[in-house]
Amino acid sequence: MRPEDRFVERLRRALSPREELLVGPGDDAAVVRSPAGPLVVTTDTLVENVDFLPGEDSSRLGRRAVSVSLSDLAAMGAWPDFLLLTIGFPESASEDLPLVIALAAAKRAEEFGASLAGGDLSRSTEIFLSVAVWGHPCREVIRRSGARPGDVLFLSGWPGEAAAGLAVARARAGGDRFPGSGGWTPEELAVPYETRLLAAYRDPEPRLALGRGLAREDLATAAIDVSDGLGADAARLARASGVRLVIESESLPISPALTAFAELAGRDPVEMALGGGDDYELLFTTRAGRAGRFSDPPAEWGASVQRVGRVEAGDGAFLEEAQGLRPIGDLGFDHFGEAP
Amino acid sequence: MRPEDRFVERLRRALSPREELLVGPGDDAAVVRSPAGPLVVTTDTLVENVDFLPGEDSSRLGRRAVSVSLSDLAAMGAWPDFLLLTIGFPESASEDLPLVIALAAAKRAEEFGASLAGGDLSRSTEIFLSVAVWGHPCREVIRRSGARPGDVLFLSGWPGEAAAGLAVARARAGGDRFPGSGGWTPEELAVPYETRLLAAYRDPEPRLALGRGLAREDLATAAIDVSDGLGADAARLARASGVRLVIESESLPISPALTAFAELAGRDPVEMALGGGDDYELLFTTRAGRAGRFSDPPAEWGASVQRVGRVEAGDGAFLEEAQGLRPIGDLGFDHFGEAP
Repeated sequence: MRPEDRFVERLRRALSPREELLVGPGDDAAVVRSPAGPLVVTTDTLVENVDFLPGEDSSRLGRRAVSVSLSDLAAMGAWPDFLLLTIGFPESASEDLPLVIALAAAKRAEEFGASLAGGDLSRSTEIFLSVAVWGHPCREVIRRSGARPGDVLFLSGWPGEAAAGLAVARARAGGDRFPGSGGWTPEELAVPYETRLLAAYRDPEPRLALGRGLAREDLATAAIDVSDGLGADAARLARASGVRLVIESESLPISPALTAFAELAGRDPVEMALGGGDDYELLFTTRAGRAGRFSDPPAEWGASVQRVGRVEAGDGAFLEEAQGLRPIGDLGFDHFGEAP
Repeated sequence: MRPEDRFVERLRRALSPREELLVGPGDDAAVVRSPAGPLVVTTDTLVENVDFLPGEDSSRLGRRAVSVSLSDLAAMGAWPDFLLLTIGFPESASEDLPLVIALAAAKRAEEFGASLAGGDLSRSTEIFLSVAVWGHPCREVIRRSGARPGDVLFLSGWPGEAAAGLAVARARAGGDRFPGSGGWTPEELAVPYETRLLAAYRDPEPRLALGRGLAREDLATAAIDVSDGLGADAARLARASGVRLVIESESLPISPALTAFAELAGRDPVEMALGGGDDYELLFTTRAGRAGRFSDPPAEWGASVQRVGRVEAGDGAFLEEAQGLRPIGDLGFDHFGEAP
């Protein structure tokens, strides 16, 4: 269990249950009772040197901070209404920095019909952005805990591309602090691949339309947004549901761009797909009888969706390869994408 | 105008108006339309070395972060329902640190019937806590903008005590970084005074019950919570209402503890009352005909309330002394309480 999951477990045990909290800490978002029906609320933070590189473009930062928070609502099958934005920034920064961040954040929110309602500014040594967002369920909320043996496991998008994009961004940033490890340089990557990987890292797309589709058609028994790497988040979904998730290696969607990067950097693309973070894609389970719905997903879902495995009785997340099953925790991922 | 006020002005001009935002950025909290009626939302952040001293007790920090955010709701005449808590903390910190903070925050919220719904953890160099809170208006929300010439100005509590408490805490922390300036030591202060000043700084009381009382009886034409110093926040209220606020020096409630501290430190207690920050008291205006209500405030308001001045036509915040009016901006406060 990762430290943040241990924290949530300990917090849940220590907090007294409150009936107005329909879903408390430990899912992608909380669900609280309000007189007009449930509100779905969540918050996410980006910290310089942890979640983004120093010198990152301010407008991209504001946009990304919003996307990352909205991704949590997407995984619940909820739609955002309002946001609050907190910006910490050093005294040495331009007075324009928070304005550029806030306007980019507001614009990103408006793409989904949501409004920036307010926020807070603070001095800090490192830049940080914290976005709190609340919205409403599109129908029933989707929990992490509903997967059952026999269900089928699906994933949107192309896992590992964001982690590769971070590696490219680090190499591009140069300097002693962020060397391209393994002797490769980003110039060796074809430009369209580099562009695609950088975009996956810098400008993730919250899968709100997909989450809404899943909720409206009651397609998902459980869902989680993939933020800490497919392997880690699969293990979370498995734990919350009390099941075993088996990811089938040969079903994993490995993009040509990731393949090219992995070859250049001497890395295993499957390992990157499982261990890289910052994907902000949806991993979800569906009843076997409904799996056919995903053979031709509607365009309005706005994302490719791929069957990547299955749900079994047991626990943990496993990778199935030709040689058999391996616990994903044993694969020794370096969480390459976690901290620059 | 302070940098954060300039930021809000620029942000307001740049954002397109959205009708679901009943009160947007620039007041103590935002008010948004929801199917069940308005929601009042706000967020506040405490950053190490800016808002609190390194080594601050974790449980006190969690409690204080909640109190500070709730103070914004108090100023709107609103009551809190739910909170989200974000904690950034260094890798070197104990794994217990966020748990202690979160439990103290949850407990503080529960004192007012509000629930900790969720949050986020992040690595960071400095500790920071960001609390987003939402609730409901007790009746009509109280804005900063409703003060009119002829109104009377009231203040709860004892301004400047928190700033003095911070100075004592800095001196107690010792070391080169936080010397007690002017050659005094906290040991020279009577223990009950020291206790009181430290408590004012470390454990502010959000004036929710007072705000509720003002809203229910429609007593306040405008209100603001005093977080950056009485002078700075009076200037904000004056600007938002398009009026002049006159604070009468001889009406300012200067506590015996502040008087004792000011004498010891060779400072002017009135200057500390106007320039010190972190009071988290309510400054509000009321129609002259209603001012009598405050001569014997109900115990359930939970705070002392004092007439401190008046509203006139014009602009700006002024201090009235025997010699006449002085613009508060000219008094050269060192914002002693702003950053350790």
